[in-house]
Amino acid sequence: MQDIKFAPPDGAFTRTVQIRFSHCDPAGIVYFPHYFNMFNGLIEDWYTEELGVNYADLIMHDQHGFPFVHIDTDFKIPSRMGEKLDLTLLIEKIGRSSLTLAIVGHKDGTERLRARTVTAMMSLSSGRSVELPAALRAAFEAYAAKTGGKT
Amino acid sequence: MQDIKFAPPDGAFTRTVQIRFSHCDPAGIVYFPHYFNMFNGLIEDWYTEELGVNYADLIMHDQHGFPFVHIDTDFKIPSRMGEKLDLTLLIEKIGRSSLTLAIVGHKDGTERLRARTVTAMMSLSSGRSVELPAALRAAFEAYAAKTGGKT
Amino acid sequence: MQDIKFAPPDGAFTRTVQIRFSHCDPAGIVYFPHYFNMFNGLIEDWYTEELGVNYADLIMHDQHGFPFVHIDTDFKIPSRMGEKLDLTLLIEKIGRSSLTLAIVGHKDGTERLRARTVTAMMSLSSGRSVELPAALRAAFEAYAAKTGGKT
Amino acid sequence: MQDIKFAPPDGAFTRTVQIRFSHCDPAGIVYFPHYFNMFNGLIEDWYTEELGVNYADLIMHDQHGFPFVHIDTDFKIPSRMGEKLDLTLLIEKIGRSSLTLAIVGHKDGTERLRARTVTAMMSLSSGRSVELPAALRAAFEAYAAKTGGKT
Repeated sequence: MQDIKFAPPDGAFTRTVQIRFSHCDPAGIVYFPHYFNMFNGLIEDWYTEELGVNYADLIMHDQHGFPFVHIDTDFKIPSRMGEKLDLTLLIEKIGRSSLTLAIVGHKDGTERLRARTVTAMMSLSSGRSVELPAALRAAFEAYAAKTGGKT
Repeated sequence: MQDIKFAPPDGAFTRTVQIRFSHCDPAGIVYFPHYFNMFNGLIEDWYTEELGVNYADLIMHDQHGFPFVHIDTDFKIPSRMGEKLDLTLLIEKIGRSSLTLAIVGHKDGTERLRARTVTAMMSLSSGRSVELPAALRAAFEAYAAKTGGKT
Repeated sequence: MQDIKFAPPDGAFTRTVQIRFSHCDPAGIVYFPHYFNMFNGLIEDWYTEELGVNYADLIMHDQHGFPFVHIDTDFKIPSRMGEKLDLTLLIEKIGRSSLTLAIVGHKDGTERLRARTVTAMMSLSSGRSVELPAALRAAFEAYAAKTGGKT
Repeated sequence: MQDIKFAPPDGAFTRTVQIRFSHCDPAGIVYFPHYFNMFNGLIEDWYTEELGVNYADLIMHDQHGFPFVHIDTDFKIPSRMGEKLDLTLLIEKIGRSSLTLAIVGHKDGTERLRARTVTAMMSLSSGRSVELPAALRAAFEAYAAKTGGKT
């Protein structure tokens, strides 16, 4: 498999994860479920630091849930203890109640993994999907525009 | 979304996971990265208990790795603390060096989640994919045949 | 350090944990925070299976919390992927609102680790410690008596 | 229980942990095994950033292990999603082959938890404890001196 180059678009939200002893398995590489934890942390930070939405409040106080309904991930190159992995978040699609993100893990300009996640806003009381609040939708649209459009 | 019925085919490998306090998030449902850990445990048990392959030896002693190269998952119905979730493993495809599995999470005849995982056998020394050993391939084929063919 | 022998007293609650790939670190042994997760699972199972108390209900529905206020652990012998570790739960002390447990990890009659945990019953509304409910205290006393008294 | 004040001594190594959704349990507070993972990360960063010792190399390349042989922890005040918890590392004792650390979790000048950890240097080949390398011992002594002596 050939290496795939990746350069985050201007304005994209990127956070660097220190690959720790605790992430690694007996083969010395990241045990894959930890990546999903990293994705969740990235999305949390994106809400809080980039969009100015308090993720804790969104989940805990507004009686909204925003669960994952789909995730697919291609693992291309493993990461090892002591390395720093960059994770970049891009918007693929904004639906009526759902949001599709791309999360790209990369290092030194090469893609190491790429995930697509779909979350859907739910009412915690009814258990049904609800339309994205207008302010949140606007924040998503602004981020997509700023990073060169939906991917 | 309508509920999807699921009944494991005869002979399918199913293990029941007790949903624990430790699996659940502040919304009281399973925090999704834990599912991937459950999948890995299911696959481990399938090798050891169903195929008679020692997974620990396969990974640690034979200088082979069998990393995930792709996973996609649809999360349909959340699971809660105290519930028991059944996980069934089926074979979708047996490649030259890769194995594609379906993992279905179900309870009381209803699908709760469904994953497709692709693992590829690698040499740990060269980092390249290697052909599946004949004995392993035969074990995969036998399991697929026994459970009604590749899905 | 000399090996310490351990034989669970008659009637003691013991569960066997399969040491999995996911538990192990790059040195091939259990990454120690996983042990605390195993302890929590053991205690959960003890409530449900031995004492007949539904732990999920206790935590989620009765507005009681039962958090850990202290844990100390001696790690004596590491455990490796593919091994089966037995965990035995014994009662050390029953306080007004607190319970002190000993959890012994052992294999083939030899102690591998030993923990002492103290949990204290709290009201989730007031945040204060509350006296152990009489039925729970009676269940603890019965278990202690059955396993040869508090250790 | 009265609150305990804590102010890190000058020069002490402190890192701030963002309490995330993923750390929290159905009661909305940090699930305690995650604290041990945070301690391990703090120690890792202390080696790398404060002592200038590459922790990954120490573990992976020098054929030395530095496992925990003892940990005790008092959990005083729970932490919640969205909070920032400061973790400060202090040296309690430097032994022949062992190192005893205090790790204090604090927020706004109040202790939330306090751990004492003992690690012992081992040869991975012989499985026996080995004397701390002189350079490492000197680094530990310098840090202890700088932070006001062993606690």
